[in-house]
Amino acid sequence: MIKSRASITLTELAEILGGKLKGENITINDIAGIDDVEPGEITWVEDHKTLDKALESWASALIASDNVYEKFREKISIPCITVQKPRVAFAKTLGVFYERHLPDRSISESAKIGKNVTLGDNVSIGEYAIICDNCVLGDNVTIFPHVYIGDGVTIGKGSIIYPFASVYDHCVLGEEVMLHSGTVIGADGFGFVEDSGTRYKIPQVGKVIIGNRVEIGANVTIDRATTGATTVGDGTKIDNLIMIGHNNHIGKNCVFVSQSGVAGSCEIGDNVTVAAQAGIAPHIKIGSNTVVAGRGGVTHDIPENMIVSGFPAKPHHEALRLNGALQRLPSLIKTIRDMEARIKQLEEHAGAVQQV
Amino acid sequence: MIKSRASITLTELAEILGGKLKGENITINDIAGIDDVEPGEITWVEDHKTLDKALESWASALIASDNVYEKFREKISIPCITVQKPRVAFAKTLGVFYERHLPDRSISESAKIGKNVTLGDNVSIGEYAIICDNCVLGDNVTIFPHVYIGDGVTIGKGSIIYPFASVYDHCVLGEEVMLHSGTVIGADGFGFVEDSGTRYKIPQVGKVIIGNRVEIGANVTIDRATTGATTVGDGTKIDNLIMIGHNNHIGKNCVFVSQSGVAGSCEIGDNVTVAAQAGIAPHIKIGSNTVVAGRGGVTHDIPENMIVSGFPAKPHHEALRLNGALQRLPSLIKTIRDMEARIKQLEEHAGAVQQV
Amino acid sequence: MIKSRASITLTELAEILGGKLKGENITINDIAGIDDVEPGEITWVEDHKTLDKALESWASALIASDNVYEKFREKISIPCITVQKPRVAFAKTLGVFYERHLPDRSISESAKIGKNVTLGDNVSIGEYAIICDNCVLGDNVTIFPHVYIGDGVTIGKGSIIYPFASVYDHCVLGEEVMLHSGTVIGADGFGFVEDSGTRYKIPQVGKVIIGNRVEIGANVTIDRATTGATTVGDGTKIDNLIMIGHNNHIGKNCVFVSQSGVAGSCEIGDNVTVAAQAGIAPHIKIGSNTVVAGRGGVTHDIPENMIVSGFPAKPHHEALRLNGALQRLPSLIKTIRDMEARIKQLEEHAGAVQQV
Repeated sequence: MIKSRASITLTELAEILGGKLKGENITINDIAGIDDVEPGEITWVEDHKTLDKALESWASALIASDNVYEKFREKISIPCITVQKPRVAFAKTLGVFYERHLPDRSISESAKIGKNVTLGDNVSIGEYAIICDNCVLGDNVTIFPHVYIGDGVTIGKGSIIYPFASVYDHCVLGEEVMLHSGTVIGADGFGFVEDSGTRYKIPQVGKVIIGNRVEIGANVTIDRATTGATTVGDGTKIDNLIMIGHNNHIGKNCVFVSQSGVAGSCEIGDNVTVAAQAGIAPHIKIGSNTVVAGRGGVTHDIPENMIVSGFPAKPHHEALRLNGALQRLPSLIKTIRDMEARIKQLEEHAGAVQQV
Repeated sequence: MIKSRASITLTELAEILGGKLKGENITINDIAGIDDVEPGEITWVEDHKTLDKALESWASALIASDNVYEKFREKISIPCITVQKPRVAFAKTLGVFYERHLPDRSISESAKIGKNVTLGDNVSIGEYAIICDNCVLGDNVTIFPHVYIGDGVTIGKGSIIYPFASVYDHCVLGEEVMLHSGTVIGADGFGFVEDSGTRYKIPQVGKVIIGNRVEIGANVTIDRATTGATTVGDGTKIDNLIMIGHNNHIGKNCVFVSQSGVAGSCEIGDNVTVAAQAGIAPHIKIGSNTVVAGRGGVTHDIPENMIVSGFPAKPHHEALRLNGALQRLPSLIKTIRDMEARIKQLEEHAGAVQQV
Repeated sequence: MIKSRASITLTELAEILGGKLKGENITINDIAGIDDVEPGEITWVEDHKTLDKALESWASALIASDNVYEKFREKISIPCITVQKPRVAFAKTLGVFYERHLPDRSISESAKIGKNVTLGDNVSIGEYAIICDNCVLGDNVTIFPHVYIGDGVTIGKGSIIYPFASVYDHCVLGEEVMLHSGTVIGADGFGFVEDSGTRYKIPQVGKVIIGNRVEIGANVTIDRATTGATTVGDGTKIDNLIMIGHNNHIGKNCVFVSQSGVAGSCEIGDNVTVAAQAGIAPHIKIGSNTVVAGRGGVTHDIPENMIVSGFPAKPHHEALRLNGALQRLPSLIKTIRDMEARIKQLEEHAGAVQQV
């Protein structure tokens, strides 16, 4: 990212954010989190918990919710822009000061462009990048240096591909897709079949289709389908080191957090969150709006609107109850031993009564 | 992959598959899975479960087992090739229609080839690939663009290396090995030693030796040995994002599924399956034909022919029993509380009897 | 690595190691582990357990502790160098025979060096490497072929960057840093914010700062901070396929083993070990000298000097006790059933007594 703006007055910023300025209309020259903020800069607080820290920081101004401002206005000694959603305002203000640093809008002489390649307007192709035959790149596509785009790949307008990302033959990326460094789209699905003790490869002749505004982190792998397509829906965000296996169909606006994985042939609905280091077994269906908690391991279909956790994953409240019970197990064993002794005593006593 | 054949008659296909044609000898022009099949194409079913779906699909013909065909022949309204193993027939039919799309059999001018490099017949070396000094590449080796091959590396005939894969100095790849994009063979093993509070690197002077017909997915890392070699046996298949640490010895025909990892100095037998996200601790021995289930964490040696699961991994039936017991824990706690109350009552009663 | 020395006498080697030679002053020509050692070479044993194996090996000489030597001197039939720490001596001896094979100290003509780049003495930049504008590379930096260094990056002296590693804009690497192949420093942190059902990207304008002597394995990802910096302290060692999320602050001399991950905004102290496949949730603090065992999942702050394991991670002795209790659960259920029957019998007896 590069700093694209030197400063802004709080009045101007409040207008951009749809917020209200409380206090003096000073000029600020950057925004930063509480831990990093310097004099002359604005910071933000999501709720009252971090307010004191923000006020003790070097920040010259503050973004806070109306609620927090009203409740603590007496101690807020610096100018404050009040907004409904401070985190959204933080993101927007970052966008006021910074823009993505993209290479020149030119085709490097060292880039190798194949036959029958269609390039939109304002495309940038970096040094040593390779675009094989029959590709179509939309307007404003940015190919960083050292990118490999295989045969017959389509890349929608505004997409950005970082160094050492590779897109294998015939895959399709939507508009405004971002692939970070080292990500591999369309390597062979992991499909083999055994016959008389030998393992044969099942040719993986399908492809990968990535929707619009999908952002994919570094060193992710999304495998091509055996036949048909592995698909990722519009707006889905994928963190680093994630595996999306072959023939998965991932819905729109999903979130996959780092080191999670989806085996093959799953159907994931829209707006599903798969948290860090979670895993989903093959041929699973997960309904829309469901959350798989960190480390969750999904081995059965999960309906919509669920929060599941644990391995095997179950509804989160059940998993919590189970875990709570588990924590009590050592003391439970003691209780049982104690009960056994009491039963024995009762039995002896009962024997004595009988003898009487 | 590219489509290398436009069409085939079912008689011809049945002969290739060693199967029998039941019904009309039509011409088909592709094969696809049930979810993707189009009119004019053949699909396949493994068992009766998916037969109805196949018959409702656009498929013009079907591959099925003799068994399924005999049982449901009345409702099978399209031509059917019967075979013993439909999944094998599926793989073979894909091979009838498609072949891997490989670059031209030439050495790119932009490739940098070191001194004393031996190239077999029909080798292809892509743009910007780097082959350092003293390498030996067998016949029909394909080096895609942007591959890095270090000093003194040997690559057996027919091997295929995708972009951004790197093979460090002195490593050895067998014949018909495939490395997908971003895979790293021979980076330093993770070996350090502490002395008086400082951590020193143990120089990693060994190498990696990969057997024949080993296929390795994208963004895998296989570390070189401290001394000697990290080895992977013939026919082993390795999915994406897998870690094989230094000084491991992996047997023949093993399968490692995505995001699994093997720490250092393990001995893995032949035909071992390590499922997704499983992990194996250092210095472990696993016998041949053993399966480590998904997420399994192996912390002790495992003999041959076992199925293990859980963490720490134990025999699968024990792990299942344990998990079953665990699920009952919350109700068990209720039972125990109830029993305690009953014991208390008995004790009171016994006290009363005694007083009598 | 390349062999940089053909041979050494045991007297010379003993002097380098600060050890004592017991036996004949022969000349050896390499060092190797017990499993790999050849005639004419020296091997080492850490304790008495592997001594017999070493003595049955082809080794011509041995490194052992004074203790082991004294205890088993009668059976040690080959010359032996005694030292305090054999593993340290092993590492040092490897360093006697081998050195890292680095490319020529030159700037390749095919490397693309941007404007305003400062190069120290004796820098090596490999084929097709890209150094963007405003970078500063210290003395003796080695950039292998096919490395991407973004704008305004600083790399301290003696650092080594392997092929296909990428360092995004404005990141800082200390001195003697090593990045193995495929590692990505400074990709965007995974930060999004929802507003009215749409997920917006939070611009990631911070950077990554890596300390001195940090070694990072293959296919690791360390994300840039939202604002400020993601930091890794001096001397920390990071294995392969590890995720360090945005805004983490990792201390000095930590060890991260393969496939572990740290979510965002964590504070990790000095000398912390995070073992294989472990994970740390966001906003966690871990005190210095703490160990997170393999597969451990840390969801709460952990003080200094702890060993934690399990998920959710707890003190290791508690986790062991819990796991021990869990293993007894199936037999416990049997005990409880049995106790229930005995209680029932007592109740019936008590009823009978009452009736009497």
